[in-house]
Order: sequence, then structure tokens, then C-alpha cells
Amino acid sequence: MDDCIFCKIIKGEIPCHKVYEDENFLAFLDINPVSPGHTLLIPKKHFRWVYDVEDFGQYWQVAQKISLALKNSSLNPDFVTFLTMGNDVPHAHIHIIPRKNNDQIGPFLAQIPHLKLSDQDFKEITLNITNSLNNGK
Amino acid sequence: MDDCIFCKIIKGEIPCHKVYEDENFLAFLDINPVSPGHTLLIPKKHFRWVYDVEDFGQYWQVAQKISLALKNSSLNPDFVTFLTMGNDVPHAHIHIIPRKNNDQIGPFLAQIPHLKLSDQDFKEITLNITNSLNNGK
Repeated sequence: MDDCIFCKIIKGEIPCHKVYEDENFLAFLDINPVSPGHTLLIPKKHFRWVYDVEDFGQYWQVAQKISLALKNSSLNPDFVTFLTMGNDVPHAHIHIIPRKNNDQIGPFLAQIPHLKLSDQDFKEITLNITNSLNNGK
Repeated sequence: MDDCIFCKIIKGEIPCHKVYEDENFLAFLDINPVSPGHTLLIPKKHFRWVYDVEDFGQYWQVAQKISLALKNSSLNPDFVTFLTMGNDVPHAHIHIIPRKNNDQIGPFLAQIPHLKLSDQDFKEITLNITNSLNNGK
């Protein structure tokens, strides 16, 4: 798409710090990282949402490869977090984020408020989802 | 693993609100949801970290199926977020979280501080990761 910043990165019209590339996918450092090594993995074909990506299994196998490379790199993270949103840049992307046990990210994730739901609420929600799963078959 | 809460759920020793099950994977509602329909997808075999899971592509294809079911359910989210951590429960799991554009989750994610890195920093980090990727080949 002409006005998509990630499509421009793929075309080389905007520079990036590339860490991985193959026929279908490109990974580069997030220019606004939340940790050193914070990487974005995108499909070269434009998809709006991450779950729209064709070859979704292959896409995540690349994400796995990068996460293991991050883990074994001299960045030496304690673990790696995957995060997808899509309400930021409207081109499918996976955030691959090296983490430390005591990093500044954990407290923010922990602060997200939890809902108080009744057992009946849980049952109705379960039914909503299983109905939708069965309709999709 | 005997003392793993998710292994106990798989064995049926602890109840759950199950939304999906196949030979290798189980999905159920997070008992402390950050949104209605917040689902956890786990492998039946115990793995410590999500990127340790065998058949990682297959694992995420199930996650895709559930995310699309959530999207098409009467929960009617604007989009769906995938999040993995692992420093909470030490059994691989994917958080599949129905989101609204104006939900309470976005502001917490947006508050995570960003690092200020120099171009030289980015170059060194890129080299760290590409070296690690090449060593893993």
C-alpha cells in the first residue's frame, strides 16, 4: 500500500536496521524500542491484521527463530515476549521483545486492570466463543 | 509436571472454561481476564517457554483460528492482541485478548517507556542479533 510506512521499509524507501529477511518476511529493530533488541517482524505482502497473514504458521516459525537468536545473543535476555496489536501501524507486525525479569515492562503489564466476572459470565463467554469456533468450521 | 497449574488443568484436576481442545493444544478462559473472552492457549505437553514449543507453526495456527473466532463472536472486538510472557506461569501459553479501540489496555501498553538509542547503538544491537541468527544456522 502506497501510504503504509512498513511497505515503504520493504521497498527500501525508508531505511531500517534489518536483522532478518527471507522471501516472505522482514525483521528490523523497532525505532522506538522498549528494550534493546526490540524487533518487528512483518510480512512483505500487506495485511491489515496479524491474524490475516497467509502462512501464519510459517510467519511464527520465523518469529521463533528470531526469539531464539535474541535469547542466545549477547543481549542476554532472561526471556522474550511476543506482542501483537495493530491499532498502531496498520500493517501486520509482531513485536519480539527481549525481556529481563526485573525490567520496566513487567510492572506496566501487571497494572492492566482485571475484570471481575461471575461464573455465569464465564459460561456465557465460553458459549459465545465455542459457537463462533463451530460456525467457522 | 506435577506442580504445574496448567498441567493440572490439562489432566482435569483443576476445572477450566474450555473453549478449544485438540490432540496437542487446549484453550480456556483466563480466570483473571483483562477483557471479556481473554483466552489462554497452551500445549498439552509441558514446555517452559512459548518458543520452546514443538510444532510452533501448528501452535500459532490454532491461535489464529481462536483469534478469528473471537473476532467473529458476539463479543464483537475491534481487534485481537496476542501476548506471551512466561514469567508468570512456567508453562508455555499464549494470551489471546479481544480488544476495543478505546479499551483500558491500550493506555497501559502505551505507557511502557521507550529507550533513547543512538544510531551506533542500533548498529551494534543489529550485529548482535544477526551474529546470533547466523550462529544458529
